[in-house]
Amino acid sequence: MSKIITIGREFGSGGREVGRRIAEILGFAYYDREIIFEIAKRTSLSEKYIQNVAEHKPIIPFPIHTGRTFWAVMPDYNQEVQKEQHDIIREMALKSDCVIVGRGADYILRDSKPFRLFIYSEMAAKIKRCQENNNKDYENGGDLSEKELAKKIDHINKNRADYYEFYTGLKWGDKSNYDLCINTSNIEPAKI
Amino acid sequence: MSKIITIGREFGSGGREVGRRIAEILGFAYYDREIIFEIAKRTSLSEKYIQNVAEHKPIIPFPIHTGRTFWAVMPDYNQEVQKEQHDIIREMALKSDCVIVGRGADYILRDSKPFRLFIYSEMAAKIKRCQENNNKDYENGGDLSEKELAKKIDHINKNRADYYEFYTGLKWGDKSNYDLCINTSNIEPAKI
Repeated sequence: MSKIITIGREFGSGGREVGRRIAEILGFAYYDREIIFEIAKRTSLSEKYIQNVAEHKPIIPFPIHTGRTFWAVMPDYNQEVQKEQHDIIREMALKSDCVIVGRGADYILRDSKPFRLFIYSEMAAKIKRCQENNNKDYENGGDLSEKELAKKIDHINKNRADYYEFYTGLKWGDKSNYDLCINTSNIEPAKI
Repeated sequence: MSKIITIGREFGSGGREVGRRIAEILGFAYYDREIIFEIAKRTSLSEKYIQNVAEHKPIIPFPIHTGRTFWAVMPDYNQEVQKEQHDIIREMALKSDCVIVGRGADYILRDSKPFRLFIYSEMAAKIKRCQENNNKDYENGGDLSEKELAKKIDHINKNRADYYEFYTGLKWGDKSNYDLCINTSNIEPAKI
């Protein structure tokens, strides 16, 4: 059975770098955006569109009164992307030892008992990291002020929390859902 | 400056063992009950009495209406034990590289920037660990049923949370107050 490490991470905490370094050190496969590219290959949808759908909880057009109607009211495109994402993550986990970043992989692969990491840090450190990553990462804050950047970081993390909770029923970032939680506030990005 | 590792830990999670192993591997001094013994040496109080006072938040005889009256209404014996505990923890941290278990040392030594660990686990694992530690540890659950043991574990952890919050104003076990949080649920006690 493959060894699987899943990484949940606050935006701005350097979780992706941690994942890359772990994969590098252990010689594991590394999956992050690769999942989006693979969904795009298998569907007729654009990467940008998929990223949006795959990382946000769906907007349900009317209130759900019973749990059973849940999937029935989900928009079709969303079901398709989620299904592909689940399938791809499961295939990747079967193929070889790997590190998978985000996308609720810890929950999708729960039967395979992955080692579940969560990476987080203080807001000041997240802002600093985003500023340093400017021009290196398309998700960065560009020329935003610190206040605007903090708002953006909070917004992205709120989306991640909503997405995770919607699909897993668990609280994102709650340490009881992870094996190891690493605070990167006092770690220089280059030293990860 | 000494390197300091502080360990907050849920009762039953094996935090003490983790601390001992880290101290052993790194060749650091290890302080846990030693702090109680040292307070006993410096005061005329018994170890059992000190343990009780040093690990519980004080019972304030009447409601506090302003923050400023806080220390004034604390029982004298409590102030004495807390003061000794603070002094001893600071002295230990100055003396050499060390691992300090519990007692809000992460907060007391915050200016020295200790590396702050928090050790936790699921209730089932805590029960199992307590049962296995039976006869090895005076804090164990003896011949309690699983239900009684769970109640005892919760009670002790509630005391730790209250104590920590009372003296630090911070939430015990909240990952933002630690550098690394380790879930020992899937680690065999012998393998720590």
